[in-house]
Amino acid sequence: MIGMGNERPGNRPGLRRILIGAALAACLLPALASGTIRAAAPGPAAAGGAEGVAPVIRRVLNNGLTVLVKPNSANDVVAVKLFLRMGAFYEPPQQRGVSIMMQKLLTRGTTSRDARQLDEAVESLGASIRAGLEGDDYGSVTLTTTVAGLEESLAVFLDAIQHPTFPESELVKERQMTLDRLSASGDQPTTSAYVNYLRLFYGDLPYGTTPADYARVIAGLTREDLLNWYRKVYIPNNMVLSIAGRVDPAQLLARLEKTLGGLAAGAPLRPVEPTAPRIEQDRATVLVRPTQASFIILGYPAPELRSADRPAMELLHWILGGSGMGSRLFTRLRDERGLAYSVSTGYVPNEGPSQLFAFMATAPANLEAAKAGLIAEFQRMRDEPVTAAELESAKKAVRGSYLVQHESNAAQGDFLGRYELLGLGYRYDEQYPDRIDRVTAPDIQRVARQYLTHYTLSVVGPEPGKE
Amino acid sequence: MIGMGNERPGNRPGLRRILIGAALAACLLPALASGTIRAAAPGPAAAGGAEGVAPVIRRVLNNGLTVLVKPNSANDVVAVKLFLRMGAFYEPPQQRGVSIMMQKLLTRGTTSRDARQLDEAVESLGASIRAGLEGDDYGSVTLTTTVAGLEESLAVFLDAIQHPTFPESELVKERQMTLDRLSASGDQPTTSAYVNYLRLFYGDLPYGTTPADYARVIAGLTREDLLNWYRKVYIPNNMVLSIAGRVDPAQLLARLEKTLGGLAAGAPLRPVEPTAPRIEQDRATVLVRPTQASFIILGYPAPELRSADRPAMELLHWILGGSGMGSRLFTRLRDERGLAYSVSTGYVPNEGPSQLFAFMATAPANLEAAKAGLIAEFQRMRDEPVTAAELESAKKAVRGSYLVQHESNAAQGDFLGRYELLGLGYRYDEQYPDRIDRVTAPDIQRVARQYLTHYTLSVVGPEPGKE
Repeated sequence: MIGMGNERPGNRPGLRRILIGAALAACLLPALASGTIRAAAPGPAAAGGAEGVAPVIRRVLNNGLTVLVKPNSANDVVAVKLFLRMGAFYEPPQQRGVSIMMQKLLTRGTTSRDARQLDEAVESLGASIRAGLEGDDYGSVTLTTTVAGLEESLAVFLDAIQHPTFPESELVKERQMTLDRLSASGDQPTTSAYVNYLRLFYGDLPYGTTPADYARVIAGLTREDLLNWYRKVYIPNNMVLSIAGRVDPAQLLARLEKTLGGLAAGAPLRPVEPTAPRIEQDRATVLVRPTQASFIILGYPAPELRSADRPAMELLHWILGGSGMGSRLFTRLRDERGLAYSVSTGYVPNEGPSQLFAFMATAPANLEAAKAGLIAEFQRMRDEPVTAAELESAKKAVRGSYLVQHESNAAQGDFLGRYELLGLGYRYDEQYPDRIDRVTAPDIQRVARQYLTHYTLSVVGPEPGKE
Repeated sequence: MIGMGNERPGNRPGLRRILIGAALAACLLPALASGTIRAAAPGPAAAGGAEGVAPVIRRVLNNGLTVLVKPNSANDVVAVKLFLRMGAFYEPPQQRGVSIMMQKLLTRGTTSRDARQLDEAVESLGASIRAGLEGDDYGSVTLTTTVAGLEESLAVFLDAIQHPTFPESELVKERQMTLDRLSASGDQPTTSAYVNYLRLFYGDLPYGTTPADYARVIAGLTREDLLNWYRKVYIPNNMVLSIAGRVDPAQLLARLEKTLGGLAAGAPLRPVEPTAPRIEQDRATVLVRPTQASFIILGYPAPELRSADRPAMELLHWILGGSGMGSRLFTRLRDERGLAYSVSTGYVPNEGPSQLFAFMATAPANLEAAKAGLIAEFQRMRDEPVTAAELESAKKAVRGSYLVQHESNAAQGDFLGRYELLGLGYRYDEQYPDRIDRVTAPDIQRVARQYLTHYTLSVVGPEPGKE
């Protein structure tokens, strides 16, 4: 069941999977045919730790660059990932989208290698380097390699992040491709529903930026814009570098100190517009499209990434719609009442204003009943505490899911680096299960009452009465 | 870059990711902003094996059930997966779709637990059980749990696979949901393009079954149909059970022998229509839709899963379009000529007739040039051998990708069980890198000449001249 459960609540990948599931589950048989008992996850971690995993080593270089090393000899994959604050949350309003193009161009040429030479240098080692944005608060550059290929591929990685040239010819091509892609984003109704929802929820704030907004900016971006933004973002005090795998920490740290220790620190990045006005009423937007199904997204404000309320909201999300077939929305709206063939929730905790949303795909004739049913289930979270059994199951499922999600070196490095960059500290990753365990049913009800106030609703589907 | 590379060629998940990427990359920033140097994978496996991994144990019970155990103490996750032949390739033509509903209902009630009790039994352990179809040749039931939760959750898993009741009330609900979902499958243009392509490619063969075909059958399915099909499919000589994780093989095998050893064998499943008529000409289908982009799928016949030509085709696929930004299609059509903002290939080796396809999303004005460019690149694979450098890089990338894909216990168990069920034997998984290594450039050209004969083309987009 694509897009349901098996994701740690609040993860961005969870959001992505929900939308993906909605878009494609109808055609792809593996998704269509899946029946699930609680699309959740395995039980609590056993007391004994895994073999071959040493504690995390954290080193802050003099210029502010933070390095995290997690030695792990379970296999031969080495995952290197650089995290940097960037994205719409940090971009000047007239430059929203510059991080997209900067990341796209980062690996298309350095002072000593053109795009083809970069490709070949990495390919010939069987390694891969990717630069990208992860949501609106930060971006990353990832090197995936092996123990044997680490030394050489790390040299290419360090070249790409330190000496990109953003060639004009590459910019011209990449800009046109990106504009074509952005202009086609409305072709998928689930995408339209989510874009319209975010715009209505956030208005002109960074998180509400639409593909059309990005296109307007990107059409006018110059090489100079990319270079200027690069100089502000790629500074050591805006970087966290995580490495997980069978590595020699002392040797690796010495090398990084030598290559990256000389970078000059710069002015710390600050969010342009960190807060949002309070939402004072329910709001709705409808886009009429000649689709067979109606697509609904309905959401509410939710705790930010660093909020103490976040663990309670993650469990609320899990119980309401994050846990697949065992969730309340699935059981009540799909299973008991047949109001939707797909229903789930997504919690997206940002650095700034955040939100929890439900997604439904339903036969158009059921639209009004489905909307009312959704709203009633959110209301019930305010009206009564979750049961002891619900809470217990959700905690076990979240803990189990945590374990499954930490199996690979790439995932281990990813969690550490992300939490460190976002100000929670890398230890947040290991503390996470305990934070979840301490949440009580009254905590969840309090958080529901505080945050689930006025809804924001987006619908894409046929005109009522014309389906 | 969602949907590009980082998948072992020929994997079904690769196909899924390609379509997902096409559908959603336009909106989701993490995808949009990713720049990649060869979205490939790390280098060749180091000589030393990973710690804590013992050899695979294979045991065939007297009734024909094959059990594979891969002890691995790297972490606390235990992955249990049952594989069974089923799906359109094995279904009687008038019953195509019965496997979909059987799998959906499998976990909705047993002789001793109703749906709610099954959910709760698994939830309270923090485990998960999923039943589903994986393509058209086989299906699976997966238990994800921990070392501590294995004993109890395995009991629920064994109950679900041995004693399902397919309750009438659950069937009525699930059937309606499935029909709603199938009727909405055309709402996403990428889905439509692929469905139309498969129908044109396969005609009335099982792999060409459309959502509308499935809907016609599913609308009339009874509980008796599901029970009858279950009795034919869930027989021990149609089962491979794989278990990966920190387990005691002797104890586990004794338990499985005791619980599953008594099942009675039945008649082996045979494909209904195992071969396809030879394709004698190029074919095309166009669906006019008011989209901003044009979506193209163009494909050719390709070696079947057990064909000796498969490794050569996997490398051809990798070099042509499976490796992301380093691939020929990406470099030539997107990078050099700007003809598509998304382009990649997918190779889908089935038990029966198989195919290799390219997917492109392009501005409608570029449609004709994009089509011609695609066809020319397939032709070039026939006309000239790949270069030594291309072949070397592709081999390294496929080997590296293999390593990354085997990091988790779930993935390890998945590969073993799938190859065993599909007649390649579980050892095929460990032999795979060497099979890839033995492919030569003339092998690839020979395979190109033999298979890439007449194309099948599907386009969804605006009317020419009206974009």
